Amino acid sequence: MITTTIQNYVDWLAQFGETAERGVTRLLYTPAWQEAQQALQQRMKELQLTVNMDAVGNVFARSEGTVYPEEVILTGSHIDTVINGGKLDGAYGVLASLLAVSELKRQYGAPKRTLEVVSLCEEEGSRFPLTFWGSRSITGQYKLAQMQNITDADDVSLASARQACGVTGGQDAQRKDIVRFVELHIEQGQVLEQEQKEIGVVSYIVGQRRYTISIGGQSNHAGTTPMHYRKDALVIAAQCISLCADAANEVGDGFVATTGQITAFPNVPNVIANDVKFTLDVRHYDEATIAMFCEKIFFNMEQLAKNVGATIIFEQWLEVAPVAMDKQVNDQLKLYLQQQHIPYKEMLSGAGHDAQVFGEHVPTTLIFVPSKDGISHSPQEYSTPEHLQRGVEVLTHILYELAYKE
Amino acid sequence: MITTTIQNYVDWLAQFGETAERGVTRLLYTPAWQEAQQALQQRMKELQLTVNMDAVGNVFARSEGTVYPEEVILTGSHIDTVINGGKLDGAYGVLASLLAVSELKRQYGAPKRTLEVVSLCEEEGSRFPLTFWGSRSITGQYKLAQMQNITDADDVSLASARQACGVTGGQDAQRKDIVRFVELHIEQGQVLEQEQKEIGVVSYIVGQRRYTISIGGQSNHAGTTPMHYRKDALVIAAQCISLCADAANEVGDGFVATTGQITAFPNVPNVIANDVKFTLDVRHYDEATIAMFCEKIFFNMEQLAKNVGATIIFEQWLEVAPVAMDKQVNDQLKLYLQQQHIPYKEMLSGAGHDAQVFGEHVPTTLIFVPSKDGISHSPQEYSTPEHLQRGVEVLTHILYELAYKE
Repeated sequence: MITTTIQNYVDWLAQFGETAERGVTRLLYTPAWQEAQQALQQRMKELQLTVNMDAVGNVFARSEGTVYPEEVILTGSHIDTVINGGKLDGAYGVLASLLAVSELKRQYGAPKRTLEVVSLCEEEGSRFPLTFWGSRSITGQYKLAQMQNITDADDVSLASARQACGVTGGQDAQRKDIVRFVELHIEQGQVLEQEQKEIGVVSYIVGQRRYTISIGGQSNHAGTTPMHYRKDALVIAAQCISLCADAANEVGDGFVATTGQITAFPNVPNVIANDVKFTLDVRHYDEATIAMFCEKIFFNMEQLAKNVGATIIFEQWLEVAPVAMDKQVNDQLKLYLQQQHIPYKEMLSGAGHDAQVFGEHVPTTLIFVPSKDGISHSPQEYSTPEHLQRGVEVLTHILYELAYKE
Repeated sequence: MITTTIQNYVDWLAQFGETAERGVTRLLYTPAWQEAQQALQQRMKELQLTVNMDAVGNVFARSEGTVYPEEVILTGSHIDTVINGGKLDGAYGVLASLLAVSELKRQYGAPKRTLEVVSLCEEEGSRFPLTFWGSRSITGQYKLAQMQNITDADDVSLASARQACGVTGGQDAQRKDIVRFVELHIEQGQVLEQEQKEIGVVSYIVGQRRYTISIGGQSNHAGTTPMHYRKDALVIAAQCISLCADAANEVGDGFVATTGQITAFPNVPNVIANDVKFTLDVRHYDEATIAMFCEKIFFNMEQLAKNVGATIIFEQWLEVAPVAMDKQVNDQLKLYLQQQHIPYKEMLSGAGHDAQVFGEHVPTTLIFVPSKDGISHSPQEYSTPEHLQRGVEVLTHILYELAYKE
């Protein structure tokens, strides 16, 4: 029996950094962040777990394994938020892991493999221009030495911000004893809600590319320039954006392509635009599909520009590889969900998560619960108490399977 | 024989209001404007013409008719410019008419019908928020009494600006003795240059409609929202803009449709846009064709929005009726141009001109000469001296036909 509800836990943690709109702002190494990590450590101690904070501020609560103590199964998520974010993004996963691990210990005693709950110090990158500072320090991608050169908007370095909030230690946070990572998170999309599923079993965290595409046409009078003399940069951009949406639909299989940003110059109603820039964000679980899509679509875009003698430039500014989640555990999970008659969906994660950082190094599992209206990064972020509870149950089950069985 | 070249005339008038970039700024009722109208009046007197300024500042130079003195053929264009405009827009037509009328008088004596050159005080609307103040005062659409309520950006009223530059008179500028208007102007487009013609015979000044079209979609995460769940306002806008360009091309016959302005919200690369606004500028010589085009295209746009459950709103903020130029004179003109082996094109005017104001009341003729690269409203505005001269010759011919023959 679980002694407190996950909803109570979530509401309790949300007080640290609560905003006027009843959202949460908990940026890395700020007082709100520090209070939350301290309160968590206090709670972890009360739950008889061994507590530790590493040199970047990740907090761990350990339930030592009896048979394979050196094999650490890490479970959790991140404690930081975006500015005026929700109560659930990150925090839910930390608290659910704490509930699950403490309840397993209460009910079954020590696990065979070591279980550790982690409250990762930073995932969002909302204060400093880097993401996954917590998880990438554990996997060894980030070193303490980098802290001097990274500064926030007020020119405070990562190093002095760390020091100011009392996080200490000169040893890099890298660990080699972690054999597995399990993360529970809200979906941040509306797939589960739309399809009336309670649990999402993530097969892949998608890869991403982002581009800025610039069309160079010719500015001219909207009245005196016949259609066939035009190099209308906005018409070409419109054709390119339509083309992308159609092509992404054709690929199917979870493929998404988005133009979220567009600017036209001179941007005057009666003048033909000569310079239009728009972004393209492409995501899929298969890198080759992304590459093929981009190659094909850029060829077609070039043709559209060439047809009227306009120029087109593609500038890539982001590339993230897709990461596969552990298939074996997913199969176990799906079998369990079927047996329990819990409606679930095997699905992609279109957003980034700490699980993608760990997933590049160890077998990793990512589980979703539904988000109301798909909203996240907002005070309106919400999942029902029943869905939050369901997530904890599923997480508890899989941690039992992984840590308590041979 | 014409005693001075049109190029000399143009360069002479361009000194009044010359800018650092060698353009011209001559806004209504400013010192530069006043000096130009005064210099013109002086020149008109030297050419033995009867000079008059009306109550709004239009300047007339009269060559009295011997047989039908009460039938006034008015010829000219406007003296005002946009800010940092070119030397030719407006001024060329005024000076060409002055050259033509004085030369006809010198060569053939007094005309049968009265010829009057007009330097219209204002066409562009660059200082006050109204266009065609000069020509619409003559046709009676504007009254002196309206001057108190119209102010410029510095809150100076049209009335006090007029007074400050010494334009006087309490009688409205409306005239009922004008039986015909003839205007020579640069094309402000690149049709004549591209087709290597020397003269444009304008059949219609096109009608215009302008709209702002707003698409209301749903903002969502670019990664976690599958293509088939999207209400992407920017994709719908792109489809609408492509559709418009295709449909305008299909209409042909000089039909033009332009989207020059677009804004997306929130305009962030990884967020699906929920609010996109774009303009539509539609022009053609036939009002019914414009109406049919809009009706059809708006129906199709509504379908595109409806398909994904988005909203679409069409807001019209401009409507100008097309105006036909005098067909009989155009036929005469074309015959003359053929006989003289002058390459010409019968064409539309996609831009507005004083001729459209007069054309609603009396038979009107509008003649174009080529603009280099179609550029106007800029110091780069240019036509070759040969083309300027050719325009004067054609204008002189047609004024002779209209005023010197029975």
